[in-house]
Amino acid sequence: MSNSEEALKYFATSAGLVTVKMMMFGPMTAFYRLKDSAFANEEDLALSNKKDRRTVFNHPQIERMRRCSMNDLENIVPFVIIGGLFAVFSGSSLTTILWHYRIFVASRFLHSIAYLLPLPQPSRVLCYGVGFGTNLSMAIRLLMNTWLL
Amino acid sequence: MSNSEEALKYFATSAGLVTVKMMMFGPMTAFYRLKDSAFANEEDLALSNKKDRRTVFNHPQIERMRRCSMNDLENIVPFVIIGGLFAVFSGSSLTTILWHYRIFVASRFLHSIAYLLPLPQPSRVLCYGVGFGTNLSMAIRLLMNTWLL
Amino acid sequence: MSNSEEALKYFATSAGLVTVKMMMFGPMTAFYRLKDSAFANEEDLALSNKKDRRTVFNHPQIERMRRCSMNDLENIVPFVIIGGLFAVFSGSSLTTILWHYRIFVASRFLHSIAYLLPLPQPSRVLCYGVGFGTNLSMAIRLLMNTWLL
Repeated sequence: MSNSEEALKYFATSAGLVTVKMMMFGPMTAFYRLKDSAFANEEDLALSNKKDRRTVFNHPQIERMRRCSMNDLENIVPFVIIGGLFAVFSGSSLTTILWHYRIFVASRFLHSIAYLLPLPQPSRVLCYGVGFGTNLSMAIRLLMNTWLL
Repeated sequence: MSNSEEALKYFATSAGLVTVKMMMFGPMTAFYRLKDSAFANEEDLALSNKKDRRTVFNHPQIERMRRCSMNDLENIVPFVIIGGLFAVFSGSSLTTILWHYRIFVASRFLHSIAYLLPLPQPSRVLCYGVGFGTNLSMAIRLLMNTWLL
Repeated sequence: MSNSEEALKYFATSAGLVTVKMMMFGPMTAFYRLKDSAFANEEDLALSNKKDRRTVFNHPQIERMRRCSMNDLENIVPFVIIGGLFAVFSGSSLTTILWHYRIFVASRFLHSIAYLLPLPQPSRVLCYGVGFGTNLSMAIRLLMNTWLL
């Protein structure tokens, strides 16, 4: 198995894990919408038989999850784009590649925990910064190694 | 053509179709913003010569399309990440792979129709659930087959 | 180096550039949140020692960056999906592939400039349209060359 083939397999695990984590905001949001009858569409009111069901756009926990989910999207999408290309075109050692993946995955799981509990700041800012730095480090190495425009 | 090469070609068609569908929210939103002079930025008012043009952030149909588009992003991005890796690393038969793709594509086209018309619930919830389950099924098979962290 | 291998290397540079640009909305938003003590979460108030710190959801520049960032996500995600597959499955010449990449990258950098300054319309609409058209052109060529469902 070549270097980049093995790196891609590690990438598949890391990308799979953060993607499944990100997917979980869907059912979690649905749970709160049903529990508190806080729906975003008129036609959804039929899903509840509570009396005070109505469309709600400022449910605190749902809005918190929405921000957390958007932050995931804005960081995990770059990770998948850059991390996947990094496995193939980085010219880095397998160890370097793997530790970028591991640190990113850990930072995003901790970020979600810090956002949803929530933990006191600056825990969330630190998790965000570590993930961002990992992506940036991969991006710079990738661009230096592939620069063709 | 190897198994995973053919699977990737099927993936290209499926990913292309759901991506083009998702792209269509852009022009559709622009159409409603122009038709109803409901712009999000001050500088956009120059695009209309109507008298009552103004910035608007609660146009019902535009907000509905925005939610539908976000739901697409939150489900199609995972599909592309996991589905692409699934073609290469799943260890599944071509038939298994293809049916995951077909069911996901169908569920997302039906989801958009159910959201935009809108159709009465639980039609949209069912479409969402089928797409979510397809992604989860691919993710579990992928992670079991590649687990390297 | 085969045609599609070289195309993928060009793709890596283009995808890397637009992704890094898109990532920059994170620190830029953080900068404005700190500067104007305009936070989205109660626990974030501890990050500032100003007196009038509070949660704010309608900071004009932050909202403008959020819309610009969302527009990026809605266009760069399709570019990465379709552009990556286009390098492998398009059946197009390397020149055709490269110019799709270059025009898309240029259109999105100009779009961000037009959105953030802002420049008078229709500059932003034109940038958006060029990027959208490039994606659509790649998608049509891709689907015609891979059609397997």
